[in-house]
Amino acid sequence: MRAFHLTGTSIDSLKRVELPIPAPAAGEVLIRLRAASLNYLDLMVARGQFPVPSLPMIPGSDGAGDIVALGDGVRGWAVGDRVVPGLIVDWAAGALAAPLAQRMRGVTLPGSLAEHATVPATALVRIPDQVSYRDAATLPIAGTTAWNAIAGRVRPGSTVLLLGTGGVSLFALQFAKVAGARVILTSSSDAKLERARALGADDTINYRSVPDWDAAVLTLTDGRGVDLVVETVGATTFARSLNAVAVGGTVFVVGLIGGGELSVPVVPVLQKVITIQGNNTGSTAHLADALRAVATNRIAPVIDRRFAFDDAPAAYRFLESGGHVGKLVVDIDP
Amino acid sequence: MRAFHLTGTSIDSLKRVELPIPAPAAGEVLIRLRAASLNYLDLMVARGQFPVPSLPMIPGSDGAGDIVALGDGVRGWAVGDRVVPGLIVDWAAGALAAPLAQRMRGVTLPGSLAEHATVPATALVRIPDQVSYRDAATLPIAGTTAWNAIAGRVRPGSTVLLLGTGGVSLFALQFAKVAGARVILTSSSDAKLERARALGADDTINYRSVPDWDAAVLTLTDGRGVDLVVETVGATTFARSLNAVAVGGTVFVVGLIGGGELSVPVVPVLQKVITIQGNNTGSTAHLADALRAVATNRIAPVIDRRFAFDDAPAAYRFLESGGHVGKLVVDIDP
Amino acid sequence: MRAFHLTGTSIDSLKRVELPIPAPAAGEVLIRLRAASLNYLDLMVARGQFPVPSLPMIPGSDGAGDIVALGDGVRGWAVGDRVVPGLIVDWAAGALAAPLAQRMRGVTLPGSLAEHATVPATALVRIPDQVSYRDAATLPIAGTTAWNAIAGRVRPGSTVLLLGTGGVSLFALQFAKVAGARVILTSSSDAKLERARALGADDTINYRSVPDWDAAVLTLTDGRGVDLVVETVGATTFARSLNAVAVGGTVFVVGLIGGGELSVPVVPVLQKVITIQGNNTGSTAHLADALRAVATNRIAPVIDRRFAFDDAPAAYRFLESGGHVGKLVVDIDP
Amino acid sequence: MRAFHLTGTSIDSLKRVELPIPAPAAGEVLIRLRAASLNYLDLMVARGQFPVPSLPMIPGSDGAGDIVALGDGVRGWAVGDRVVPGLIVDWAAGALAAPLAQRMRGVTLPGSLAEHATVPATALVRIPDQVSYRDAATLPIAGTTAWNAIAGRVRPGSTVLLLGTGGVSLFALQFAKVAGARVILTSSSDAKLERARALGADDTINYRSVPDWDAAVLTLTDGRGVDLVVETVGATTFARSLNAVAVGGTVFVVGLIGGGELSVPVVPVLQKVITIQGNNTGSTAHLADALRAVATNRIAPVIDRRFAFDDAPAAYRFLESGGHVGKLVVDIDP
Repeated sequence: MRAFHLTGTSIDSLKRVELPIPAPAAGEVLIRLRAASLNYLDLMVARGQFPVPSLPMIPGSDGAGDIVALGDGVRGWAVGDRVVPGLIVDWAAGALAAPLAQRMRGVTLPGSLAEHATVPATALVRIPDQVSYRDAATLPIAGTTAWNAIAGRVRPGSTVLLLGTGGVSLFALQFAKVAGARVILTSSSDAKLERARALGADDTINYRSVPDWDAAVLTLTDGRGVDLVVETVGATTFARSLNAVAVGGTVFVVGLIGGGELSVPVVPVLQKVITIQGNNTGSTAHLADALRAVATNRIAPVIDRRFAFDDAPAAYRFLESGGHVGKLVVDIDP
Repeated sequence: MRAFHLTGTSIDSLKRVELPIPAPAAGEVLIRLRAASLNYLDLMVARGQFPVPSLPMIPGSDGAGDIVALGDGVRGWAVGDRVVPGLIVDWAAGALAAPLAQRMRGVTLPGSLAEHATVPATALVRIPDQVSYRDAATLPIAGTTAWNAIAGRVRPGSTVLLLGTGGVSLFALQFAKVAGARVILTSSSDAKLERARALGADDTINYRSVPDWDAAVLTLTDGRGVDLVVETVGATTFARSLNAVAVGGTVFVVGLIGGGELSVPVVPVLQKVITIQGNNTGSTAHLADALRAVATNRIAPVIDRRFAFDDAPAAYRFLESGGHVGKLVVDIDP
Repeated sequence: MRAFHLTGTSIDSLKRVELPIPAPAAGEVLIRLRAASLNYLDLMVARGQFPVPSLPMIPGSDGAGDIVALGDGVRGWAVGDRVVPGLIVDWAAGALAAPLAQRMRGVTLPGSLAEHATVPATALVRIPDQVSYRDAATLPIAGTTAWNAIAGRVRPGSTVLLLGTGGVSLFALQFAKVAGARVILTSSSDAKLERARALGADDTINYRSVPDWDAAVLTLTDGRGVDLVVETVGATTFARSLNAVAVGGTVFVVGLIGGGELSVPVVPVLQKVITIQGNNTGSTAHLADALRAVATNRIAPVIDRRFAFDDAPAAYRFLESGGHVGKLVVDIDP
Repeated sequence: MRAFHLTGTSIDSLKRVELPIPAPAAGEVLIRLRAASLNYLDLMVARGQFPVPSLPMIPGSDGAGDIVALGDGVRGWAVGDRVVPGLIVDWAAGALAAPLAQRMRGVTLPGSLAEHATVPATALVRIPDQVSYRDAATLPIAGTTAWNAIAGRVRPGSTVLLLGTGGVSLFALQFAKVAGARVILTSSSDAKLERARALGADDTINYRSVPDWDAAVLTLTDGRGVDLVVETVGATTFARSLNAVAVGGTVFVVGLIGGGELSVPVVPVLQKVITIQGNNTGSTAHLADALRAVATNRIAPVIDRRFAFDDAPAAYRFLESGGHVGKLVVDIDP
């Protein structure tokens, strides 16, 4: 089968190879992959910033396809089923625990940049008929993360603040809008802000022209602040996020591209009874819920650009450039 | 001031009277009412089916207006504020407790069928600028009840079953749709079902032509059932509601027009881990949340018909006839 | 191996047999059982009141032992591990869904009345060192059910009403007391009530001498009622349970020995905002939590009587007689 | 009446004065205070580290007494009722919002270091018969804060980490133990650790002899970490608290004596799905729940030392010295 091997610690070390089709072990299925999508995690893996057990390995966390073979002991799945696997394959449902977090597709297990992959059945979610492989492939990391930020936290009438137009932010925008929330979104690009408004953002702020965007958020909310910030950046934005959040509100922490250490003033956290919530994507059940929400509400995931399989390294580079709006997809078998 | 007095135990006993404008006691405000709306509770009060402390009394639970005077010790409100009071005036927020449930507008306190009313400040919710008095007046019982059925129970992708097109059902329809749910609604009238579809219902069932509508609900959900039933009827529909609900689902009990005694088979409640949730409208905070959701999502409450103040008894009779779709409003001071 | 076969629809149809030791399939482990415990479910199965796929079958839902062999693809378990499997073997964690509820030990899968059993690894919970096989074997149905009634519903200072001294009631008593609640317990036997007081019950009511025990509960709670009723009976007690529960309280429905149809008055359910919560034991994660609570708080499960393996039918008959206080255990390999 | 006036920004500026007994305004009651207790907040107020509207003012947040007069419009209270008021007087129940947080006893309203005080009725909690004024007076800040850390977060079998032996830590210890948790507590004093063990702490760590106490916590929990840290210190301990918490656990932030700025590493917050929860004491309803838990479980609040009314400044100084274990009480009218 066609595949990519990550052979070093740079995008350049991604090599197109031919490999034998693997066989599913007990409890696994073999999937013929149809599409993959890239996330910041994949970039960190390719750059050697996120440890992997050994090289070479097949990278790519997110992918979707159809089942072509079943390992021993697999129940509830059949050849031909259209499926999308979650990232953390042993986290089927319920609360995360350390032993469940060991095996991750595209990190400690073979990933999606190949024509076939074996996947533990606990990671599988059925793709609804009305959702394409390509759209499904965008969900495991970005869609599930955004879902966990929004679902259960946002009610009709809530106000949500989103930072930027990456994959998580745009899924959060789409989920927040179908959940009845008002959305305020920041970016440094007027073009991206216009795109966000077209996708439903109620208010947008260019943080380059309005550096104290937290004050702008307070003005837009009559001084009240927002109920939820989806913090996809981190250190460089965190203090402003805390300032922009309402009494009783939540800062949902997703990103670390702004740096690995947050500086958090205690007094507002106490006085405003703020919740700072860390996130590690989600379980297979969370992915299933996110996909159900996408199908029910006919959400079209925002795909900035599609790449042919052999051009996967170009997708990594485009992601690295930060110029994207939404998701980048690698078509495997159109 | 113009007012109605309920003098007996029938709609005929509603009498138009002239009364002095009351003065607000400590902790109360005086409101000039602009609009009132009727609920099934008002009908029960007028018929003598819901006990009131003494007659004559001013009926009418729901109303909206502006503050014209403040009693001693009232903080946070000013003359001119546009407000809508909740039903259970001492239930400001948090959990209900028995001592909070004693004083209800239009039941144990003077109600909204008058040009003025005194109201404890704990019951007040500010009306957002973009919401009219008339629309606000439809919310205290029906809107708050529907809000408590939907908010926190429904996520994007959930499926909700609604019975009929009364005030609670239609608010639940509107809240469920802005919350990203799929809605299935039943009625005996094709015209009402068409109206429901125009308001966003995804699927509708005429329970006269499809008496086993619970089976139809299961078919529509691929055998899974719905996540939530808003049970606005009661005894006559309850067994079918239990059959239509999914494993882990909730039957939210609002109504008793179907009778005062539910017959509940134990086995499905156990096997499907069903939650049966009783409801007693909601707190002032719940009303505020519902109103915020209405304003943010530009929900237009469904008002079937408006009545001039002196025609309020006709509104009671129309409500009694059951022919309405949504709410009935009495205009007080247009 | 020694085993029992259920060959018909009566306790008399339980037959001692010799069977080959089964081999674990992919995803399963083979357990050497050390102890089993009986539940009302086992009695229903033996009497033919709960359908099983075919006869003969090995009955017995609850058991505990150590792993002696691993099937293919089993991760995280080793030979020698002391384990107790849950009832609903595919329900690992999170919310129940219909497909997860098919396979139950001692119902649709071979059960615990045998020296060995194969069990899907998803059902396994590790037994803490300080807990015996015998104590662990009492938990899967009764302990997990009681845990789900108490955990997350009871806080220090809550009041809980328990009906009778069966396995679920006594586990609920023990969990409620270590959770800081006040417990009121009813029984028809003064001796059982004395036993309950010795186990920590704060107040007890003999419902034979005090037939209107719901009024007695209200008196004991200054008219407020209890926060939680664990309804282990059903139809014959339900109206009184609703009367005894506080505003905002929960009736947690477990039992149906009082009959299969509850008659529920709507008005108190509405006015008191009551939650009626059905239960279907719990997931493997719930069993693990219950076992952790037992170990941490050194709870000694109440075992009324132990039976030698060959005397298992006598245990069924004793359970049927209703004379027990707590659990009945069958020792398999002491 | 006897009272203290804070006249400057130091403990020395506390002056014993004679003042007229105030009259309750509408919505208020007049309380004859029997006991007061001190908190770190009172120290900050006395030192000028927490802003007050004007000087002189009567300090002292926490106190308990009996009602001697009712203002207009007060419902549900009578002269003679034994009561303890909460800190944030307008926060009766439900979620905090900015307008509710303005009026605080001993900060923006007259406090408890006086023989009488007027208090808004929304702040009042009835003291159960079995609880003394003195014990009740210890609860408003420290007891309510500890309650909100423990209640709803801790179940039987949870593990809790507490830092030090101040008022919040010891209430958290007592609430955690009656809630069935395992408690690990740190201090720099072996004598204090011995006291904590006598109060129920399961494991203790002297952080002076074991500077990497977070590693010790992990060892004590088999590498798993604790479910909850009650962070009563802040900046100097926070990184270790994050290291000591389990996957899915919570760091409940109460204190800032360790400094006003937390440095938070992002990666563990993400990977362990940590919740960092800020706290601002709690509502009147929270205080009532905490007091109910104290009464039901016969918890004896830990009072390190009692001071005569005229010696109140000495109590401030003793608090400042940090030598206390639990609460400091000022007896007003024994």
